Amino acid sequence: MDKFKLTFKPDDKQIKVKKGENLLHAAVQAGIYIHSSCGGDGVCGRCKVIIKDGDFRTEPTGRISKGEKEKGYVLACLTSIQGNLTVEIPPESRLDLEEIPEEEAKFLRLKGLFTPPEEVELAKPHLRENVFEHSPLATKLYLKLPRPDFDDKVSDLERLYREIRKGRKISIMQTGLVNIKRLGSLLRESGWKITATLGKRNETTEVVIVEPGDTSKKNYGVAFDIGTTTITSQLVDLNSKKILGTKATYNKQAAFGDDVITRIIFAAEGGGLERLHHAVIDTMNSMIKDFVSEHKLNLNDINGVTCAGNTTMTHLLLRVNPVHIRREPYISTANFVPVIRAAEAGVKVSPRGLLYCVPGVSTYVGGDITAGVLACGINETDKLTLLVDVGTNGEIVAGNKEWMVSCSASAGPAFEGSGLSCGMRAQKGAIQVVDMDSDLNVKLETIGGLKPRGICGSGYVDLLARLFKNGIIARDGKISAKVRSPRIRKAGGKYEFVVVFKKDADADRDIVITEEDIENLKRSKGAVYSAIATLFKKIGLEPKELKKAYIAGGFGTSLNIENAITIGLLPDLDRKIYKFVGNTAIVGAHQILLSYEAMKKAEEAAKKITYIELSAESKYMDEYVSSLFFPHTDSTRFPSVNVK
Amino acid sequence: MDKFKLTFKPDDKQIKVKKGENLLHAAVQAGIYIHSSCGGDGVCGRCKVIIKDGDFRTEPTGRISKGEKEKGYVLACLTSIQGNLTVEIPPESRLDLEEIPEEEAKFLRLKGLFTPPEEVELAKPHLRENVFEHSPLATKLYLKLPRPDFDDKVSDLERLYREIRKGRKISIMQTGLVNIKRLGSLLRESGWKITATLGKRNETTEVVIVEPGDTSKKNYGVAFDIGTTTITSQLVDLNSKKILGTKATYNKQAAFGDDVITRIIFAAEGGGLERLHHAVIDTMNSMIKDFVSEHKLNLNDINGVTCAGNTTMTHLLLRVNPVHIRREPYISTANFVPVIRAAEAGVKVSPRGLLYCVPGVSTYVGGDITAGVLACGINETDKLTLLVDVGTNGEIVAGNKEWMVSCSASAGPAFEGSGLSCGMRAQKGAIQVVDMDSDLNVKLETIGGLKPRGICGSGYVDLLARLFKNGIIARDGKISAKVRSPRIRKAGGKYEFVVVFKKDADADRDIVITEEDIENLKRSKGAVYSAIATLFKKIGLEPKELKKAYIAGGFGTSLNIENAITIGLLPDLDRKIYKFVGNTAIVGAHQILLSYEAMKKAEEAAKKITYIELSAESKYMDEYVSSLFFPHTDSTRFPSVNVK
Repeated sequence: MDKFKLTFKPDDKQIKVKKGENLLHAAVQAGIYIHSSCGGDGVCGRCKVIIKDGDFRTEPTGRISKGEKEKGYVLACLTSIQGNLTVEIPPESRLDLEEIPEEEAKFLRLKGLFTPPEEVELAKPHLRENVFEHSPLATKLYLKLPRPDFDDKVSDLERLYREIRKGRKISIMQTGLVNIKRLGSLLRESGWKITATLGKRNETTEVVIVEPGDTSKKNYGVAFDIGTTTITSQLVDLNSKKILGTKATYNKQAAFGDDVITRIIFAAEGGGLERLHHAVIDTMNSMIKDFVSEHKLNLNDINGVTCAGNTTMTHLLLRVNPVHIRREPYISTANFVPVIRAAEAGVKVSPRGLLYCVPGVSTYVGGDITAGVLACGINETDKLTLLVDVGTNGEIVAGNKEWMVSCSASAGPAFEGSGLSCGMRAQKGAIQVVDMDSDLNVKLETIGGLKPRGICGSGYVDLLARLFKNGIIARDGKISAKVRSPRIRKAGGKYEFVVVFKKDADADRDIVITEEDIENLKRSKGAVYSAIATLFKKIGLEPKELKKAYIAGGFGTSLNIENAITIGLLPDLDRKIYKFVGNTAIVGAHQILLSYEAMKKAEEAAKKITYIELSAESKYMDEYVSSLFFPHTDSTRFPSVNVK
Repeated sequence: MDKFKLTFKPDDKQIKVKKGENLLHAAVQAGIYIHSSCGGDGVCGRCKVIIKDGDFRTEPTGRISKGEKEKGYVLACLTSIQGNLTVEIPPESRLDLEEIPEEEAKFLRLKGLFTPPEEVELAKPHLRENVFEHSPLATKLYLKLPRPDFDDKVSDLERLYREIRKGRKISIMQTGLVNIKRLGSLLRESGWKITATLGKRNETTEVVIVEPGDTSKKNYGVAFDIGTTTITSQLVDLNSKKILGTKATYNKQAAFGDDVITRIIFAAEGGGLERLHHAVIDTMNSMIKDFVSEHKLNLNDINGVTCAGNTTMTHLLLRVNPVHIRREPYISTANFVPVIRAAEAGVKVSPRGLLYCVPGVSTYVGGDITAGVLACGINETDKLTLLVDVGTNGEIVAGNKEWMVSCSASAGPAFEGSGLSCGMRAQKGAIQVVDMDSDLNVKLETIGGLKPRGICGSGYVDLLARLFKNGIIARDGKISAKVRSPRIRKAGGKYEFVVVFKKDADADRDIVITEEDIENLKRSKGAVYSAIATLFKKIGLEPKELKKAYIAGGFGTSLNIENAITIGLLPDLDRKIYKFVGNTAIVGAHQILLSYEAMKKAEEAAKKITYIELSAESKYMDEYVSSLFFPHTDSTRFPSVNVK
């Protein structure tokens, strides 16, 4: 097939393109970010570019004024390349992915939250891999269509559908008018050899886009866990099912408040919703951009995105006002959102690429939990199973394939390493394992084996358990003044414990845990434990009847269950039933990205789970208050924990 | 519910609106035409208006610049009304429905084709009425949703879906992100009393739009027959199934050529496709506008549009390039087009209203014929049945519910009254019945009983038959010089026959038929007859085996079958099997507008009909040439016609 030179000004970027290639697509391929909110339908008129020289064909449009036309303006999405071409991208069409205003960036820098997306290692619990049929959100098919002749005269569109259906069971097929408009010339210019990208929308199969030639090898997707504090993402090869990379970074929305309630309040202010929406989209887009450049892909190759987030995060991502979530009786606008074009939400992948948000259970149990249920297979097991996901919100699900109940507790971001004096996300240099003998000799393990930079959730669990076991902290969490050690000191009127001295750290100060940190962590663990206890009382079962308990959350790559029980975060049960599974939201999101079967099962699960509102349970407050001790006020609940 | 005053400047139009009403919707309601090509999704940014004063709520959007924002600009589609409001419509947002350039308008005026849409009466053959289930393209449901409380906490969207599903069997339900974004406040501001408009798209049910309060009584649709020469439309009450009006006018595309081939050639020229597209859309929009003003509706009440047209007309309507239709092997881009938003094609109805084009059989047998097959029920009968649709293209279908074959012949627009010296469309004042005794006393009947203005198709059929029977025209169509009568005279070297003298006519000259007219009509009737004859030879059957023959086309409100046989337009068969059915395309289009069952049956029929290419049949040219006589070269084919 003919290949032409395409030059972009003022960048002077040059790429080779096939005849008939769409100009918006080609710009994306060259790594040039252009505004486009309609998915290349020619509707939004934002992808204006100026043809400087060369052969092209463009569709007339009312979005280009007469004056612009005379200057060579066209809509990139309506233009096809017919020869060597030079194109100028005017500044107004250029998309700057780092749109975060200086004032917010300043706040994030101040709080240490302005960190670029970073490659991370997740807990590897080997959860139910390859259990779902391989049928990704976007499938690419390279097709050689038989040329029409007098004996085979079906229309171009039917010819395409017929070829797609060969050997495949696809009942309802649909496509957009924009694809139909392009089809006639595209088929002929490509010599009837094309790649069709198929997507699943509303239980029908959509021909998302048709490209000339064979691009079927390049088919990628990104799965997101949209946390209130942390956003994690995975680049997935939709053909081979391989995970090519995993990144995490702070959600830039953190500049507008720590928890969902603060964000909802901010959303109601003038321009608040818009800013929150842009913050999360910016965070996502910068992760995608990094994946694309590191793996030498182009945005056109990213055809599907799945997002698992709590209900408020999903609302903000889609720019749906979450205001009613915090007004009685706490109703979300939508827990189920259909598959949309990623461009509709501002997520920059292939212009017509698809976006699916994992459905949530209720206002306070979102798609991240549904994804977790799917990843752990609670919806498919006979055994009574527990899932505890410790994030900024702590969510609990208990049940089996017949029934499931859930609840949510505001745990705060402490176990994600946020809001603590030396806390950090589970990334390189984070202290994730802590051991300590009675002489307070501290042994550490950091992620990546680097010099310690801070402490992540699993490190705090270990640290609290060791300090408690060694009598450094009392049941109420106060640091004992009786123990003499250079590690224990007073600062600002309160005690703190030095975990790593500055000289041994990759930090500009000693790494410590303060009484305030401990208070914070105690409230978090108390919220989670009391939620579990209340939920079990409500359903009339005892936690000891559990056959399996999955512990999820951004603690780190591992979690010491013994220590988690010691501090009273988890019920005192047979250790064998516990499994630390890390980030189950991202696991579920990538399973759904790779499998339509998984998507359907997630939807069924979300419908099946009953939500229980803890604030309506009179016992919850009592339970919470009694849990604000190590391990608990009622030590008979923790018989295996020997309290000194 | 609260009602507010909404004032539009500079028009000073004022209407009352409900709290929470969408501003774009309200403008349409006030009869103010605003640009909007995305269906109110907030994507296209064309519906910019300026808020002068009052209470409103608007969603932030990147389509409004900072400078515009300061001046009060908002997107109407993203703005809801919260109190009395004054809004200015800037000129650039205002849609001028009469966009046809002066040069084209001049041509149309010259040819007498620049006529406003006119109320017409169609043939009333009582075709299969009420045979299909009432399930219109758009259905409105007024719903009182139960308010959420702590015992009933499903999300707003699920609450809506749940209420819609009550007592209705709807499996797959979908809606657009824009509806989800509006839903939260809309439900609460309307006191949970809303009207949902449902549409069928890709075999799923779409919640097209949600409006506050009860608008369910106002649900209308428009069915179109998009002919190459004439466009006919019907306003239909989708609730009561009543046809409220029928209009016809010339297709403004006529300025670019008489037949489809000329238009396709024009479409390939720079800007040609765009101009043809706008011409048909303008014609349609001006008809809709007239309906709306005459019936005191507003565009928001028009929720569905169906179009039956030949394949080229459908391509041009959707701005799909028809260029491959006239290149071997004559392939159309799409015969089946999914339901789209009317706004996507530029058809101005409710911003989110739906548009369905009746599927075609092949490149040269389009959706108008599928609609005709449906209207006549050929696809459901056991009996061998014929449908002849005489238009600019003459199409023939023969068969029954088991099999159907079709062909197409270029008949020219003569029987639609176009291209003849005194021809006119079947509208008021057209001579539609002609009788004549041997002394050449002429008796006429005009449509509406008015003074004659010209002659329509059925009038020409009668006229030719009478002139032939009375020996005024010979078998070759020449006017006899032997007969002495003031009605027969020579003009410009050729003979003509005066049908009505100027004094008796509502015209500025005598109404005549010329030898050139007769030549034209002879070619038309010859093309149709020879197509029928060739088709029957091809399938190895004799026309006399027919049990039923439906004759369709824009002849007039009636057609004298005896005379049609006399001139050799139709085969000489038992008159009882014939039925003149007039415009079956519009009948089928309105059946589909009113019934999803009819839509599905039309799709099945279009797939079942086999197309036979006459130009590939060696016998067709011979047949055509032998048919260029009255009634035919081979008079044994017309035994019942006594040739003097």
